[in-house]
Amino acid sequence: MANLSQPEATNIAAGQNPPPEQHDHLDDHAFSFSPITLKKLPHLSDYLQDLQPACPNPLDHNSFFHPSDGFYVNTSDVVLRQVACRLSPSGTIASPSHHLAYIRAGPRKQIFFDHCATRAAIVTCGGLCPGMNTVIRELVVGLWDLYGVRQIYGIKAGYRGFYSIHPLELNPKMVHNWHRRGGTVLETSRGGFDLTKIVDAIENHGFNQVYIIGGDGTMRGAVKIFEEVRRRKLKVGVTGIPKTVDNDVGIIDRSFGFQTAVEMAEQAIHAAHVEAESALNGVGLVKLMGRSTGHIALHATLSSRDVDCCLIPETEFYLEGKGGLLEFLEQRLKERGHAVVVVAEGAGQDLIPRSTAQKEERDESGNMVFLDVGAWLKTELKKWWDREHPHELFTVKYIDPTYMIRAVPANATDNLYCTLVAHSAIHGLMAGYTGFVTGPINGNHAYIPLADVAQAKNEVNIKDHKWEWVRSITNQPDFVKSKQNSV
Amino acid sequence: MANLSQPEATNIAAGQNPPPEQHDHLDDHAFSFSPITLKKLPHLSDYLQDLQPACPNPLDHNSFFHPSDGFYVNTSDVVLRQVACRLSPSGTIASPSHHLAYIRAGPRKQIFFDHCATRAAIVTCGGLCPGMNTVIRELVVGLWDLYGVRQIYGIKAGYRGFYSIHPLELNPKMVHNWHRRGGTVLETSRGGFDLTKIVDAIENHGFNQVYIIGGDGTMRGAVKIFEEVRRRKLKVGVTGIPKTVDNDVGIIDRSFGFQTAVEMAEQAIHAAHVEAESALNGVGLVKLMGRSTGHIALHATLSSRDVDCCLIPETEFYLEGKGGLLEFLEQRLKERGHAVVVVAEGAGQDLIPRSTAQKEERDESGNMVFLDVGAWLKTELKKWWDREHPHELFTVKYIDPTYMIRAVPANATDNLYCTLVAHSAIHGLMAGYTGFVTGPINGNHAYIPLADVAQAKNEVNIKDHKWEWVRSITNQPDFVKSKQNSV
Amino acid sequence: MANLSQPEATNIAAGQNPPPEQHDHLDDHAFSFSPITLKKLPHLSDYLQDLQPACPNPLDHNSFFHPSDGFYVNTSDVVLRQVACRLSPSGTIASPSHHLAYIRAGPRKQIFFDHCATRAAIVTCGGLCPGMNTVIRELVVGLWDLYGVRQIYGIKAGYRGFYSIHPLELNPKMVHNWHRRGGTVLETSRGGFDLTKIVDAIENHGFNQVYIIGGDGTMRGAVKIFEEVRRRKLKVGVTGIPKTVDNDVGIIDRSFGFQTAVEMAEQAIHAAHVEAESALNGVGLVKLMGRSTGHIALHATLSSRDVDCCLIPETEFYLEGKGGLLEFLEQRLKERGHAVVVVAEGAGQDLIPRSTAQKEERDESGNMVFLDVGAWLKTELKKWWDREHPHELFTVKYIDPTYMIRAVPANATDNLYCTLVAHSAIHGLMAGYTGFVTGPINGNHAYIPLADVAQAKNEVNIKDHKWEWVRSITNQPDFVKSKQNSV
Amino acid sequence: MANLSQPEATNIAAGQNPPPEQHDHLDDHAFSFSPITLKKLPHLSDYLQDLQPACPNPLDHNSFFHPSDGFYVNTSDVVLRQVACRLSPSGTIASPSHHLAYIRAGPRKQIFFDHCATRAAIVTCGGLCPGMNTVIRELVVGLWDLYGVRQIYGIKAGYRGFYSIHPLELNPKMVHNWHRRGGTVLETSRGGFDLTKIVDAIENHGFNQVYIIGGDGTMRGAVKIFEEVRRRKLKVGVTGIPKTVDNDVGIIDRSFGFQTAVEMAEQAIHAAHVEAESALNGVGLVKLMGRSTGHIALHATLSSRDVDCCLIPETEFYLEGKGGLLEFLEQRLKERGHAVVVVAEGAGQDLIPRSTAQKEERDESGNMVFLDVGAWLKTELKKWWDREHPHELFTVKYIDPTYMIRAVPANATDNLYCTLVAHSAIHGLMAGYTGFVTGPINGNHAYIPLADVAQAKNEVNIKDHKWEWVRSITNQPDFVKSKQNSV
Repeated sequence: MANLSQPEATNIAAGQNPPPEQHDHLDDHAFSFSPITLKKLPHLSDYLQDLQPACPNPLDHNSFFHPSDGFYVNTSDVVLRQVACRLSPSGTIASPSHHLAYIRAGPRKQIFFDHCATRAAIVTCGGLCPGMNTVIRELVVGLWDLYGVRQIYGIKAGYRGFYSIHPLELNPKMVHNWHRRGGTVLETSRGGFDLTKIVDAIENHGFNQVYIIGGDGTMRGAVKIFEEVRRRKLKVGVTGIPKTVDNDVGIIDRSFGFQTAVEMAEQAIHAAHVEAESALNGVGLVKLMGRSTGHIALHATLSSRDVDCCLIPETEFYLEGKGGLLEFLEQRLKERGHAVVVVAEGAGQDLIPRSTAQKEERDESGNMVFLDVGAWLKTELKKWWDREHPHELFTVKYIDPTYMIRAVPANATDNLYCTLVAHSAIHGLMAGYTGFVTGPINGNHAYIPLADVAQAKNEVNIKDHKWEWVRSITNQPDFVKSKQNSV
Repeated sequence: MANLSQPEATNIAAGQNPPPEQHDHLDDHAFSFSPITLKKLPHLSDYLQDLQPACPNPLDHNSFFHPSDGFYVNTSDVVLRQVACRLSPSGTIASPSHHLAYIRAGPRKQIFFDHCATRAAIVTCGGLCPGMNTVIRELVVGLWDLYGVRQIYGIKAGYRGFYSIHPLELNPKMVHNWHRRGGTVLETSRGGFDLTKIVDAIENHGFNQVYIIGGDGTMRGAVKIFEEVRRRKLKVGVTGIPKTVDNDVGIIDRSFGFQTAVEMAEQAIHAAHVEAESALNGVGLVKLMGRSTGHIALHATLSSRDVDCCLIPETEFYLEGKGGLLEFLEQRLKERGHAVVVVAEGAGQDLIPRSTAQKEERDESGNMVFLDVGAWLKTELKKWWDREHPHELFTVKYIDPTYMIRAVPANATDNLYCTLVAHSAIHGLMAGYTGFVTGPINGNHAYIPLADVAQAKNEVNIKDHKWEWVRSITNQPDFVKSKQNSV
Repeated sequence: MANLSQPEATNIAAGQNPPPEQHDHLDDHAFSFSPITLKKLPHLSDYLQDLQPACPNPLDHNSFFHPSDGFYVNTSDVVLRQVACRLSPSGTIASPSHHLAYIRAGPRKQIFFDHCATRAAIVTCGGLCPGMNTVIRELVVGLWDLYGVRQIYGIKAGYRGFYSIHPLELNPKMVHNWHRRGGTVLETSRGGFDLTKIVDAIENHGFNQVYIIGGDGTMRGAVKIFEEVRRRKLKVGVTGIPKTVDNDVGIIDRSFGFQTAVEMAEQAIHAAHVEAESALNGVGLVKLMGRSTGHIALHATLSSRDVDCCLIPETEFYLEGKGGLLEFLEQRLKERGHAVVVVAEGAGQDLIPRSTAQKEERDESGNMVFLDVGAWLKTELKKWWDREHPHELFTVKYIDPTYMIRAVPANATDNLYCTLVAHSAIHGLMAGYTGFVTGPINGNHAYIPLADVAQAKNEVNIKDHKWEWVRSITNQPDFVKSKQNSV
Repeated sequence: MANLSQPEATNIAAGQNPPPEQHDHLDDHAFSFSPITLKKLPHLSDYLQDLQPACPNPLDHNSFFHPSDGFYVNTSDVVLRQVACRLSPSGTIASPSHHLAYIRAGPRKQIFFDHCATRAAIVTCGGLCPGMNTVIRELVVGLWDLYGVRQIYGIKAGYRGFYSIHPLELNPKMVHNWHRRGGTVLETSRGGFDLTKIVDAIENHGFNQVYIIGGDGTMRGAVKIFEEVRRRKLKVGVTGIPKTVDNDVGIIDRSFGFQTAVEMAEQAIHAAHVEAESALNGVGLVKLMGRSTGHIALHATLSSRDVDCCLIPETEFYLEGKGGLLEFLEQRLKERGHAVVVVAEGAGQDLIPRSTAQKEERDESGNMVFLDVGAWLKTELKKWWDREHPHELFTVKYIDPTYMIRAVPANATDNLYCTLVAHSAIHGLMAGYTGFVTGPINGNHAYIPLADVAQAKNEVNIKDHKWEWVRSITNQPDFVKSKQNSV
């Protein structure tokens, strides 16, 4: 068995289908599926030869979460990733050419941790995201109520907390109201990742289940922790719970907090719209979260409908000349007297002049420092108007709601998501899986190899209908095409 | 071709797979798919022999919603319904034994309506649901902006409006702010379904696209309209957009307004919780919408976590005796001093004494009149306490938030849903499909035969994990099992 | 010195003004004020002869709440109650004929409680009201931070808690987040007033400051406690903090929670409006809190503007006949197709048929049980329509938001009020005053004899402009006048 | 009669009081009032000699807003400004030494405008403030419904709209939902004040009632318009409605939108608190509106209680050295690990280094341009920490919620205020008063000379208890005192 930290999919060609007869219509055909690739998960038994299942699953005796018939998820239950297919007249599925399947999440009949011996650690890393406290709360309550675990610890202040701060003992009473609070009671920070110190701490504290909540950088760290734990042959399960308000983590449908963030972003757009339409030549400018992806900007634009132009990292834009933003705003202000521009924080980074120092600066997670595209755009818009229309009124109201969006508690939709993802993570670790992430795929919670998630990016597909919808709602310029024209 | 109003699925056994070799582990196998059944859609060309495609799709020339490569949905693009499967060691998919596939929603290259000749009618029927105005708005804006349609009419006050009220001409300017308003500006009503009068009115007004927004009763009416239109061989496309705040329509993932309703329901539960915990032996009782299904109650319970017992139509419960609700509340009040009970309006209908008149009464849609389970339960609880603990304080605060939930505007998540469903409906009718419903299946919008949707119920699967989660969160009694025990 | 429990105002005619000269215009005159009556407060020294001031006020040494010049309120500082006057041409104030003045609230230089010896009890009685937890929190934090008190206790579950439940020790850390929570963490109940047991408990627990938060019944109890404490010559200060979501307590401008309640009531009215205008002949009916006064109904009507008729306890109304509610609704539905009726819970109680049992029933506080005017009105409206328009659609949507209004946390305006009232109460007891209530009079916090407040009712003055405003906004019938006409 | 634009108060010494006898206690005394100064109002009849009252007040015949006994406000009805007094043992009021009285607002029996001949103009100037649309709506509805006025015009885009944009005709149907919308539908702008052009436009359009909604700069403009109108002897009533989200206008209790702004500000503070407490050494920094006054900062601090330091323009502060902000934050971070700083935008302007250009820059209203104290403070805090604790984590999250606060619709409290102030303004102009402002004084709406309001500043009294409360809640340093110490 090869490198478990990069779980290879097992991909064997499916059986041959008999040659299809000639038919005119799709619906007169039989269709057969393309080959299915099952994404294997690492398991503690992969490297712990003598691992034995623990006592029977305590859920068997839980009168409330009780195992009705078909309750336990079978180890051969999977979730398909590609749900949209193209049929071919030949009686087969033409696209995709092969299918991915992921292990379905949920409670297992057989578990590998005794509740008395289980010692769980929970850590939150990176920036805030609505729902972090709900996830923590549900991990604690789930471990306690479902599996009878009594040793549950919060690691304070991110990765560095493993080796620098005493863990905080948690219990259901403490966390009772946490799902109503924004932020993370455990505190969080960026960076502080020291692999040796962290795994030493895990060993020293005797943790055997580690729940890591964080973004893509955090997930890459989690992969390393999992690999080191495996190298040391520790009986320690490691799972990651993707926390990304930007929704930039791939494979899973979405991450928690995203719906709440869109809801708040819509309010900021509405405020910008009110400011713009209450002024003469008023422009409302809203910067939304999204360093590498424009999902919040896109969804908030679709939800709000007050946006005249939505700028995201996945597409380029330019200011001057034919087809540029300024020409578009000129026209829109003439027609309507006001306009609203939404810009994701990662958009237009190549357009902003960057000093030498700025070119080298990095944040705690090692990412290049982003320049404030909102402030830059505000200045450029003012300069442009003063140049072109020196005697006419013009107002730009710039709203950066970032820290008001991140800090709110999760809404009902996200709270429910947090419950499901926390319980799935618990079931997975209890079943002996490790090095995995849990999240919904086409609405069904599944287990996904950590390493896959740490690599995958969820970018806005600008060839997809959603982006077309944005453009049809805003009627904004197609910067790409026009750019070519203007050359 | 048989009865189109009951579109039969084409189900042909898929090709044989070669016999699988013997293997120990799932992941060493090749898997092949079970046969796929494609759900065909009615099309105007089914009964209009000389129907010709209209001019090219105007989207070709729309600079904003522009057809990039792969933009148009191919007629052989489908969405799979069963995304969770069980693999068998034999190298096949063991379950489900066959798959359903639905035509994927989206714009088509070929359309059958000229924008000048298109005359669309929009009607809303039944009770209120957050997002109705957004759907209307997006139908108007979508028809106008995407396809250049200029004749768009609102039918007032439900089905009866077709033949009794002059249609209201609609345009984008009128509907501009409707997505911020609760209710339906077109007004709505139950009943009033007179097939002949309605189809006569459709003919007389020259409508050739009919968008019907309503619940399951309305969808059954829509099927009849579609059939009558086909019988008369009219070139009139008929589509249904399921509106059910209860989320009781089957096949589709969920219907619009549901997330908003859960959000509001959570607030009512929180208020009940505050009332309960601020009293001595305080019980908060919340009745939530859900005549035949308990989805709102279930989701709000999972989102809120303050619920001690959640009662839904899909499971029975009983008050007295061992394992009954009263025994449970006795114990919970003793332990915590307060309790919160959530009851869906359709739960416990068989427990409430019904007068002869009540046994025969029917509402405008012909449904049996539901008795107020909340008021009944409140009375029963008081009687019980007075009987058992005559000298102790006891308080039941009963909250029925129904009309405060239904009347709010859609939240961001639901607004986005409304946009997608409205645009999908337009694309479908434009492409000549008829007698269909549009909605998301595993997150992908698809077209589904109207008749299928009109029949399908979306009940809470009480053997599914979600319901177990509810029980593990509330730790409420398993009424079914205990009932047997108590006999 | 006479009966302190009914503090008599000192009313001595003011000095004579010189005879005014003849003038044409008011503004050429000198005006002199009418005599001022100062409302005296009970003080511990009234019955404790050897009472000595304690150590200097610890505020002297508090570096943050520090006594700048003019910081301490002088014992001769007063607040005038009548701020609107009528001048007479004779150079005097014509109306009111004499003025009331109340002792101004605030910190005093001289205090009568040593912080080490202070032992405070806080109790909440009656129904919920937004802001109760904020008041408790601010009492705790204020006593602790400002005066160094360390013995602070919460009495659980209302008056009965004094003698039946062990007091809960409170400190700033415990109450830190309470102002964000609705309800009362101390729990509350009606009734349970047993004077001897309560004052015995006060003595036994050694409490010397008692803060009583409750409505008019509670305030009448507080008067009795104060009198009994005085009779026993205990060094125990007693103060009342009026809690009435209905705003029915007199003398003070308003009580806490009222603004929050109006805010929530407005939302319920808006929902009723949406339901009504989305139906054919739709009536939205909202019952709002207000047994003896219609303040919430009045304010919510003025804030919302969607109301067609507002019914309050202070004015009569009738259904049938000329000028009746039904005639009015008939006309309004004809004109607009929908209508919204707001009814305070105490309105129309004499119109509802009452069974013999109902005539005798009393609630825990001894008040006559109110019948549900909303449910009655809903039934009457349906009967009327069925009788008059048997073949036309009609819908009444009835919303009773009571328990959703009471349970929310206080909004910013009310939170601020709670802070001021709690600190004022502390300063007053520390200064040795007792048997008083604190509250704003014309925007200035003052101390008012408890007995006065316990008697005073704050009814809507239907001859005042506010009520005229309501009628000019709703254009509702003047039931009184029309009634006379119809006789 | 002197200069009416600066209405002089008539101040004549009140009659002598008889010499008080010797008494020990205040309450045995008679008290008499100090002399009262009545603030006269300009009236059209002051300069229009032949002005005759119009037809009887149409309210006489309005069946809804009907004149019950005592309905009309008498011309000698006044509101006292000083409601808090100090009594002296000599039997007089010691302080204030004389009293101010203002004409009470409300409908008058006698009016000077015929409804057919009335032509009203409404204009909004300056920045946004919650409630502007409500005021406009109520002016339109009040003029229309109460007085039968049918010629009502909106001036677009502030003062410049009088002479550069065609007025917009308004009616109740148009404005029906405006109170639910933020901003101002009439649009607004700063500057554009050209006295001659404006008064010419008033004459040319035949306006005879002018309602001017704006801040202190706008009010100063309104004074000039009133004076010019009087100079030209035009029968044109001019009234100002103070709009200042900062609450910096004097004499009146508060202006509309303020409560809503505090509510929103509290949310921003809460978000900053969540960000701060979720980080290691986290500082949440919130900049709130308030150029010359810190009312929003003060009230939001008192409402929120999460603030560690509140900085307002009325008090100085400094960063470095003993007793400085940095020392305080150092200590607070050590104790609690996080801190929240609220700064009003006008605070610390003298601390920020200002370039020569910045020293000369002025905004459209002629005010000195304010530098961004928030951004400056954020930078200074980072520099300080890097210098003092180069190896420790530190985070400052800076929130500027300005444009999200200004753009929301008014809450219920403010909506009610807007109704009252709009109706009062109408009644005043109808009664022939001019050059006045309407607003609440001690809770009673009064008419105040425009010129007085244009001059008066409402600053936070830092010797008052409210500011002490802030300091006792935050326990922040007393910068002034410490500064002296540190010298």
